[in-house]
Formats: sequence, structure tokens, C-alpha cells
Amino acid sequence: MKILVLNVNTSERMTSTIATAARRVASPGTEIIPLTPRFGPEAVDGAFESYVSAAALMDLVQHHEGEYDAIVLAGFGEHGRDGLQELTVAPVIEICEASAHVAQLVGRTYSVVTTLQRSVAMIEDRLRLAGLADRCASVRASGMSTAEVDADPDAAALAVLAQARVAVESDFAEVVCLGCAGLAGVEDAIRAELGVPVVDGVGAAVRLAEAVVGLGLSTSKRWTYAPPDPKRFIGWPLP
Amino acid sequence: MKILVLNVNTSERMTSTIATAARRVASPGTEIIPLTPRFGPEAVDGAFESYVSAAALMDLVQHHEGEYDAIVLAGFGEHGRDGLQELTVAPVIEICEASAHVAQLVGRTYSVVTTLQRSVAMIEDRLRLAGLADRCASVRASGMSTAEVDADPDAAALAVLAQARVAVESDFAEVVCLGCAGLAGVEDAIRAELGVPVVDGVGAAVRLAEAVVGLGLSTSKRWTYAPPDPKRFIGWPLP
Amino acid sequence: MKILVLNVNTSERMTSTIATAARRVASPGTEIIPLTPRFGPEAVDGAFESYVSAAALMDLVQHHEGEYDAIVLAGFGEHGRDGLQELTVAPVIEICEASAHVAQLVGRTYSVVTTLQRSVAMIEDRLRLAGLADRCASVRASGMSTAEVDADPDAAALAVLAQARVAVESDFAEVVCLGCAGLAGVEDAIRAELGVPVVDGVGAAVRLAEAVVGLGLSTSKRWTYAPPDPKRFIGWPLP
Amino acid sequence: MKILVLNVNTSERMTSTIATAARRVASPGTEIIPLTPRFGPEAVDGAFESYVSAAALMDLVQHHEGEYDAIVLAGFGEHGRDGLQELTVAPVIEICEASAHVAQLVGRTYSVVTTLQRSVAMIEDRLRLAGLADRCASVRASGMSTAEVDADPDAAALAVLAQARVAVESDFAEVVCLGCAGLAGVEDAIRAELGVPVVDGVGAAVRLAEAVVGLGLSTSKRWTYAPPDPKRFIGWPLP
Amino acid sequence: MKILVLNVNTSERMTSTIATAARRVASPGTEIIPLTPRFGPEAVDGAFESYVSAAALMDLVQHHEGEYDAIVLAGFGEHGRDGLQELTVAPVIEICEASAHVAQLVGRTYSVVTTLQRSVAMIEDRLRLAGLADRCASVRASGMSTAEVDADPDAAALAVLAQARVAVESDFAEVVCLGCAGLAGVEDAIRAELGVPVVDGVGAAVRLAEAVVGLGLSTSKRWTYAPPDPKRFIGWPLP
Amino acid sequence: MKILVLNVNTSERMTSTIATAARRVASPGTEIIPLTPRFGPEAVDGAFESYVSAAALMDLVQHHEGEYDAIVLAGFGEHGRDGLQELTVAPVIEICEASAHVAQLVGRTYSVVTTLQRSVAMIEDRLRLAGLADRCASVRASGMSTAEVDADPDAAALAVLAQARVAVESDFAEVVCLGCAGLAGVEDAIRAELGVPVVDGVGAAVRLAEAVVGLGLSTSKRWTYAPPDPKRFIGWPLP
Repeated sequence: MKILVLNVNTSERMTSTIATAARRVASPGTEIIPLTPRFGPEAVDGAFESYVSAAALMDLVQHHEGEYDAIVLAGFGEHGRDGLQELTVAPVIEICEASAHVAQLVGRTYSVVTTLQRSVAMIEDRLRLAGLADRCASVRASGMSTAEVDADPDAAALAVLAQARVAVESDFAEVVCLGCAGLAGVEDAIRAELGVPVVDGVGAAVRLAEAVVGLGLSTSKRWTYAPPDPKRFIGWPLP
Repeated sequence: MKILVLNVNTSERMTSTIATAARRVASPGTEIIPLTPRFGPEAVDGAFESYVSAAALMDLVQHHEGEYDAIVLAGFGEHGRDGLQELTVAPVIEICEASAHVAQLVGRTYSVVTTLQRSVAMIEDRLRLAGLADRCASVRASGMSTAEVDADPDAAALAVLAQARVAVESDFAEVVCLGCAGLAGVEDAIRAELGVPVVDGVGAAVRLAEAVVGLGLSTSKRWTYAPPDPKRFIGWPLP
Repeated sequence: MKILVLNVNTSERMTSTIATAARRVASPGTEIIPLTPRFGPEAVDGAFESYVSAAALMDLVQHHEGEYDAIVLAGFGEHGRDGLQELTVAPVIEICEASAHVAQLVGRTYSVVTTLQRSVAMIEDRLRLAGLADRCASVRASGMSTAEVDADPDAAALAVLAQARVAVESDFAEVVCLGCAGLAGVEDAIRAELGVPVVDGVGAAVRLAEAVVGLGLSTSKRWTYAPPDPKRFIGWPLP
Repeated sequence: MKILVLNVNTSERMTSTIATAARRVASPGTEIIPLTPRFGPEAVDGAFESYVSAAALMDLVQHHEGEYDAIVLAGFGEHGRDGLQELTVAPVIEICEASAHVAQLVGRTYSVVTTLQRSVAMIEDRLRLAGLADRCASVRASGMSTAEVDADPDAAALAVLAQARVAVESDFAEVVCLGCAGLAGVEDAIRAELGVPVVDGVGAAVRLAEAVVGLGLSTSKRWTYAPPDPKRFIGWPLP
Repeated sequence: MKILVLNVNTSERMTSTIATAARRVASPGTEIIPLTPRFGPEAVDGAFESYVSAAALMDLVQHHEGEYDAIVLAGFGEHGRDGLQELTVAPVIEICEASAHVAQLVGRTYSVVTTLQRSVAMIEDRLRLAGLADRCASVRASGMSTAEVDADPDAAALAVLAQARVAVESDFAEVVCLGCAGLAGVEDAIRAELGVPVVDGVGAAVRLAEAVVGLGLSTSKRWTYAPPDPKRFIGWPLP
Repeated sequence: MKILVLNVNTSERMTSTIATAARRVASPGTEIIPLTPRFGPEAVDGAFESYVSAAALMDLVQHHEGEYDAIVLAGFGEHGRDGLQELTVAPVIEICEASAHVAQLVGRTYSVVTTLQRSVAMIEDRLRLAGLADRCASVRASGMSTAEVDADPDAAALAVLAQARVAVESDFAEVVCLGCAGLAGVEDAIRAELGVPVVDGVGAAVRLAEAVVGLGLSTSKRWTYAPPDPKRFIGWPLP
């Protein structure tokens, strides 16, 4: 089975990190094919960047020539899943939604811990549109941007752990989903200190993609995700 | 990986049917262990029967001595999942919820087609409590009981197909979940005539169980699904 | 009028306490018939215990030979109400739902104060399925188990009062429902210190049962609560 | 126990009809005190009339000198309940809400059948604000105005029965609440032909009032229904 | 364009304040016609007063003889809008709803800051019925009554600012709507200290009225807001 | 006041149509500045096209050098509004949301009539995320694509009118919003035959933009719509 894993930003380093996370959980026989967009921001934090990124993902899949069985959209809560579903019959799994699906299978409620407060809106919107918001106890932000995380990873890990603690102890979350790039040791710390399962979105999406493909299912082409009608474009696809 | 697949009723024939469905989709290396309750109805259609069945499932798991990695509760919309989650750290996947999870991964909305109108209530309740009702376009009943299905399977298949058609063409469902025992040819007929993916609950649950176990996750013991406190019982566990 | 009052656990002492509470509010001419299950836990705190208890309630009603006009299910938020409704035409009133109905008649919002956090889930689920969650300001746990309450009732009363205070002053609840066994003086303390009505579930259920029976109404047998179809059981009813 | 039963309109004939309905279900010892507003429309169908009526109800209660234990607001879905709750500590029960409470106690879902489509909005609003809309399968209008009902009661009864049939058979309502003045024989016809309980709002409200008073409860004065602060009025209370 | 601006209370001073606020934002060519009810409270804080006020608004519009293009109901969250919509084809804009509409156009979420906790219920109800509650982060009360505001406006301004701060920093509101009479300097302080837009209800309503009239739209007379049928009244209209 | 009106597709003919619609309702002194994206589809029907279009809108606004006071996003239910809100302090009004705001001001409920069933999903999502879905009675599709509309405008007009009729008479919509390019005579036909107000999205958005700007309000920069952080892009902005 071949799974395209789409990084949403143009950082090759992040693509590599994502590929590693995907391969760590992939079943034997699953090939992970990581892809980096040809244009767009090196990190995606808000709606403007997410829309540019979404177009870059359409471009990426339209230009991809190899075969594949499923697509993982590796941007937590980012735009584009439904657009890709129109372009392919393969299942398309977005990692925020994947996290929520998996979390609901092992706990009654879950919380998401992400980076900045401005990302909370996009994650909430994504969960709501996916019909997965009902068992979400909270979406919480650590308050540290990607740059700050890079500059001080230990402080970042503590900030994430602190929000996870509030999620579990005040919001009564039973599972924590990490809505931000993995920080060394954070998962272990949350599990150890708070006693709850921790879900990584990339891993969850890879395993769900395997499950859906294994069931012989593909994206429904009835109604919403039917292929686009042929149509005149200007300046698209990009050369 | 070992998966206990719990039939909710005392029909050995149904246990066998379920086991076959589970093994058909299980990955290599997954062992399906079908179990039949020691007491209860031979078919479960309503709340009274479902509560008796739920107690029988508790009994079944409390008496089970072998090891296992996950439990599939093979009763569409039946009671008991949360009770079992207290008794084990293994993930417990109920097939109605599993169907909904998988359906949402391949379509924007889904409908369930079940047998009798009286079962609609339990399925709706299950989906609502699981936080999976939002993308449910409808739960529809074919109107034929299990006995009637046995007596005239061709008529039953047509009745299910007819409701699936209404679900797709009037409720705009993009995926159909079968909330009733598989009828020969119904899945193919729905796919062929309506052009939508069809989800079988047992298969969906087995693959999701594999996914969750593959991710190294187990049932959260924080808050709701903590093990029961030691406590005096009368007449329980049953001998 | 005869009202069966079903204790959900096998503690005769609790059955006696419940009977006293029921008789205190019953109208002249109402006969309270308390019943204790033949098997199950001596206290019900979680889903596992609640499912065993639900089956024991089915057993209890199936074996009950006397006449009755209504059933009160005296387990706050416990399973079984809908199953019993299939077995009888008499109205079946669960005490958590009864509390919410009555609370909504005397205030715009209400809160429930229960024992342990693990019970919050079941109460929330019950209210949601009953369509009574909308005006629920919060379900709060005192954090003390039944055993701890027995060991130190004064501390327990203070813990309940403390949560009631948060419910009224932070969640803006206008009525408090006690979702736990009555502690001497707690009701008076909440009323006196917080100035809100306090609803006891057993009392509420008895009075609602009288009201419904007085109106000449019985459980609807159309759709969900129709009698179970005749069906082969193994090992049930219990001897 | 004394219950004020407030007609919302100025038709003495309707007051008399309501009083009869109330007395038919009242327990021995309950005194029904029917009151007619001093001003306003002879029938209330829309929001304009309902606001005039609400003010007339405030006037009525402010001028009432006798004692009472509860108030029944006998206008199906009409305005004023919360205003009256500020003026008294006695419980105030509106008949549309009362119908929904009682209906939920004897069935999983209920429908309301009222007169004109324009009244549907007010009833839906009332149920929503009361937190009782969740189990409402539908609010349906017979399409016949009060005048038309008077002119041809047989046709009106058939129109109500027809909508009740759609409610039960298409909306899967398990209980029918009559949101319009009782027509001779309609209740019996619905019960006989559709096999569902029928709830009359005035009766439901009287019995719920008895239940709440019997429990020793009164309207919460914390937050929303606190007494109005003393304040200067112009032209009010009316002489 | 002529806009009737209806004060909900009988304080001429308040009518004057409202008129000033309306004229400050009105476009050239818009004539503001302020009206004061002929009876009712000098301030409206709860449901009782609001119903009396609503009837007074009906009276006011029924007796108004001049022409007008729109009505602004200048009582934050007060009753009456739907009743007025039956009496006229002109658009009727209530200021709480207007605030929410405008707030949603410039931010993802908004909070309302009002005076007393008892007013929170009415505002929440109004937003819910208007279908505008979904993006409401919170409705918060400063805790100071109108009288207290008059006695110590500086303290009142600080109390409002404090609640606005909680709304923005804890509830993550992106816009603040003032649900209370304007206090000198509060708008500027909120904008300056919290960095969010502040919406004044009267201004919002006037501009929305201009927009709707400018589009050539009037109140729909189909279904809910159809004119009242001719009907016999007692004591109404008031002389 | 200068309003940028952004066509979402690359059809200059459509830009011209939109500009005409905008100018028809704009107040004196409002300058309409129509813009066409530099790349993308000539018509936008689904999510893939909508994401490409959204990126083209970001490009358009980033390259626009003139001043402006507000932006109208003239694509019914299309992506991009929140991204543009990050790029500017000017209010950004999307025409589907604008239609819903205005419709709610003149009726209790509204329906949208659009072209193809596949567009229904995007419109429903947009309304839901905007917090405007609650009063939406239905989103209905005429079933005719843009190409078919061009080929047979008379048939298209009849198809739209037919769906509007179902919306009003079966879904009880009180206002109709046109979610598709205006067809000559359709608005008049709906108003004349169905007696409901008809809302055109471009007009609604222009008038709401004027209202918001007239109130001195701009997009909140607190939380969600804060300006993007400076960040390295590859291949963006496009040359």
C-alpha cells in the first residue's frame, strides 16, 4: 500500500520529520511517500497561509504521477481535504480529524493542545465541519509560536504539558491530541504525569488510511466529492 | 494481534457469521476470537433485550481467561461498550460507531439502514452519545424483522435497497452503513445502483481495532473508564 | 395508586432509605412498594455496574407479580428506564430525569451535584438522551465516594455544599439537584446558604408518577417502547 | 391547594372551558381559580396579540388579592411565564411546556398539533427556550383558524387527526400534544386510530403544579426570577 | 429615510440619549424619530417589565400616525420585535440582535457586557431565538444596576471594562458589544486597553436599518409575521 | 467610500455582472472597484476550485495597491474570507453570509436556492461556520449547472422558482436568498408568486459593508484575524 503524506508547508526539514513519524507507525508493506509543496509558507499558522497552502496541495496532487492508495494531509486543521477528495478516489485523511477519530475510540472526551491561540479557531472549525466537535473537551494553546519552540524547546514542552494538565484536570479530557509539532519527551511526560493516552495526528492518519484501504473503501463520488467538471482555467495548473 | 469479537446474542449461527465477516477483512497476523454470550436472547432488537445482552457481555468478558488486544462489540447500536471499557485496558470498538467513523472518512454524510423502526431509536442514541450524529443524514428502517428476513431474503434485500435509495437520493447520504445482518448481494446492489461506498460494521470495527492497537493506544483510565472499585456483589459474577 | 420503587443496587439499607424518601412526599392513597434487585452490586457507580443493575431490574420487573400503576427507577442516571418501558404500560420514571423536569419548572437552569467525577458522564448522557440537558448549567462531583461519605458524613456534606456553591455562583444555576444519596442537613444548608430550591430525585419521581397516572396516561407503545417480540432466550428469565 | 388558572384571552367562554378541563383532572383538595384578563384580544394567535396578553396577565396577577399556591398559564406557547415568575414565589406552569414535560415522560418523542402555521413559530420558540425542543419530532398546523373551527368543527377534527397521523407515521412521534382548543372526540380518535397517548396542556399543567407544590418547591429567586426592583412606572399598574 | 427609534422605557432622558446616539451614526438624509412609550417602567431590567414595555411598544406603533421606513427597537434584548413585525411592513431591528450581526461581520466571536446578572438570561434568549448565539463567546454582567451606575459612573466604567477584559482574555471574544447604557469613555477604554472593536447597539441598528431599506426589502409577510387577523379586543387599543 | 468587489473566478464577464449588481444598490459616494483574479477557474463550483480561487484572492489583495475601505467577496459560499481578514483591517464581507444576515433581519427563516447539489455542502459549511445556520430552513439546488443555465435560461429560471416554491411552502422559509447568478426575472417571479422577500448576495454585502464602515468599525485583530507573522515563503507572492 502506498500512502502519499503531504506536508502543508515548504520546509523540507518538516517533511522529513513527518515522514519519520509516519514510517514509525506504518504497517509492514505500507510505503510512505512524503511530498513537499512547490510553493507556499515554510510554516502554516493562520487562514491566509492555509489557503495558499491548500492551493499548493491541489497543485502537488495534480502534478503527482505515481500511483497511491491513500493521502494523508499532514497539516493539523489546515484547509484542503475536501478539495483533494474531489481530485482522487483514494481516501484523504487529515491529521486533526484523524486524531479526533482515534481519540474518541479510546476515551469519552479529548482535548487538543496546539501552539498559538490564533490556531484554535481553525482547529475548532475543522472539527466542527468534520462532525467531530461534540466530544472535544477543549482546544488549548500553549502560547508559544514555532519560532519560540525552536528557540527554547524545554520551555515549549513545559508549556504544552501545562495546557494538557488543565485539559485533563479542569476540562476532564480523557485523551490528549497534540496539535503541534512533536516535542521530544512531551508525549511521555503527558502520559506519565496525567495518565491519559496521547494521540499523534500523523500516526493516527496513517493507521486510519490503512484501515480504510484495507476495507476496500474509497472516497464517495456521489454529491459533494464528485470530480470537478472540465472547465477553462487561467494560469492553472501551474507550469 | 488477538481480537475478541463479541456476538451480542446467543445464536451460535450468528456468531459464526460474524466471525466470517471479521476474518474476511482482518490483516494477516490478526487472530479473530469469536465469543457467544452464556445467556440472553437469540436476537437483540430493543432496549430490554439489549440490557440483558449487555450484562451477558460483562459476564463474558469477566469469565474470559485468554489474552486479547482489543474487543469488538458486534451488536449494531447495542448497549455495553462503556461497561466493557471499565473492565479492560484494551480498546473496545462497537460496530455502529465503527461504521460511522469509517463512513465519515470516505464521505461527507452517511445514512444507516436497519431492520425495524424500533431499532432506529437505539442507533440514534448510540451515535449521539458517541459524538458521531452530526454527519448522519438519516437512520432508516427497512421495516422487516429478522424473522421476516429469514422467510423472504429477496424481499428483504429489496427493502434495504429501497431505503438506501431514499437515503442517497432524498437525504443526500454519500455513504451507506448497513445496520442489519448482511443480506447476500445487498452491498453490491447498493454500490452498483446508487454509486456510494457501503460500510459493514464488523469489518470496520476490526480494522479500527487494528489501527488503534497498532498505534500503541489503550482505553483511557482517567475519569469515565477507570476500573470499577472493589465492591460487594450479590449473585454476580454468575457461576 | 401503587408505585413500584426500584432500588438499583442490592443494599437493603438503601432500599429502606429510598422507601422512606418516597413515602415522605407521596400523596395520601399512594402506596410505595420498594423492591431490591435479586443480584448485582451493593452500590452502582459506573457503567459496568449499571449494566448488571439494569439486567437485574429487568429481572425484578419480569418476576414481580403484584399490580402497579407506575415504576420509579431509583438510581440517579442509571441504565434501564427504556428497557422497563418495553415491559410495561405503566409509566417508568427515572430519578435523574425526574429531577431535571422538576428543576426546570422552578428555575431557568439547574445543576446536579453528584459523588465522583466518573458518575458525571453517565448523568450527562442520561440528561442528553432524555432531551433535558439544555438547561443544565453543570454536573459537578463532590469527589467523595460512597465509602468516604459513610466514613465522614460531615466532610461529605461540606463537599457537596461547596460544589453547590460553585454551581450557583459561577455556573449561575438557579436550582440544585442532588445526584447522590441524601446527607443529613445538606438540603437545608444549600437552601439556607445559597437561596435556591433543592430537588430530591426520589421525591420528584414519585410526584411525577402520580401526575402522569392521574392524567390517565401510560407509556406509548408506538415505535420505541413497543413490547418485545416473543423470542427464544437462553438462561433468561433467571430462575 | 389553590391554583390560579389564567386564560390568556378575554373570552369568558374560553375561561369556562379551561376551568372545566382543569377541574376534570385536579386532585381532590385542589381548588381551581380561573381568571380572565381585564383587557386584550378574545383569541391569541400571534406575537402582537401575545404581548398584549402578556401585559394583561401581569396586570391580572398584580391585582389578584386572594392566596394561591401555583399559577397555570393557559395559553399554548404564549408569552408571560417568566414575567409572572418574577412577581410570585408560587410555581408558574405554562401549558405548552407542561405538555412537553408530560409527553417526554411517556414517550421518546412527541409532536404538537396546533391551528395555524403562524402559531408554529411561537410554539417552537417556547419549547426551545424551555429546553424542551430536543425530543420534539414536529410542530404541525391543521391550517384551520379558530373561526373556521367554530364554523365547521367536524372538518377541524379531521384536519387535526390528519396532522397527528403524519406526526406519528412520518415524523415517528410517540405522543401527540394538542396545541389547540380541544375538539370533541379528537383525543379519542387520535388514541384509537394512531395508538398513541394524547396530552392536553391544561390537564398536564394542573397535575405538574400539584406535583411541584406537593414537593414543597417554589420558584427560584436566585438570578433570573428575582423580584423586580422597586421602580417608577408611568400609567402602570393600570387602575 | 425615516427611522422610528423606540425607547423601551418611559424615561424621556433616555429617549434623548438614544436619539443622540442614533443621529451620530445616521447617514445624511436619514431622519431619526425618537418615541417614548405612553406607559411602563422608567427602566427595563427583567421579564415582567419587559412584557409591560412590549405592550407599550405595540400601543406606540399602533397610535403612530406619521410615515416611516424602519423601526429600531432600542431596548437591549427586550421583548416586542416580532410583535411589531406583524404590525408593519417596515423592517424592525432590535439593538441586541443588531449588535450581534455587526459584531459577527468584524470578528469571529463576540461577547456582550450588560449590567445585572438577571439581564443575562433575556439577552441569551434573544440571541438564541434570533439564531445569533453560536458565535457569542459570553454574556457577562458588570453587576451594577442602573441606579448604581448613576451614583458612581467611574466605578461602573471600571466594572464594565473588567468584564470586557475577561471576555477578551478568557473567553477569547474578538468583539465586545455593550449591552448597557453607554458610559462616558468606556468604549474608548475597551478599544485602547483590549484592542477589540466595540459595538453600540443603537448605532448598529440604525445602520442596518438603512442597509435593509436601501436594498428595497421589507418584513416578510409569509407565515410568522403576517398581519394579525381582525379580532375583537377588550380595552385595547388603549384610548 | 471605496469597496473592492472581488470576483472569485477569472471570467471578466462575470466581474462585469457583479460590478453592475454592486453599483445598482451602492449609496451615493460609494465607489465600487471590481477585481478579477489573475489565475484560477472561470467558474467555481466545488472545493478544489474554491481553494485555487481562495489563493488567487489572497494574491489579488496582496498585489492591490490602491486604498479601500471594505472588501466584498463575491463568491457565494466560497473560501477565503478569513484569510483576507488577516491581510487587511478593512471589513471583509462574503456574499452568502451577507445574504443570511439580511434575510434574518426581514424574516424568521430563510432558504438558499443554488445551482448544483454539490454546492449545497459548501454553502451549509459556510453558514455553519459563520454562526448563521440556525435560521436556515434549507439549502436547495435547482440541479442545473452554469453551462446548462447559459444554454437554456428560461428552463433555469423555472427550476429556481420551483425550488423556491418548495422552500417557502414545504420548508416554511420566509425569505429566499439566491445562491446563484441572477437570472432575468427570477427575483420578480419569486416575489410575485411566493410573496417573500428575495435577497441578492452582492447587494446585501455592499450595503452591509457600507453599514460597518459607516459605524467606524474594522476587522478585529485580536486572536483569529491578527496579521500573519513575517515568514519565509517559497514561490509566493506570485510575481
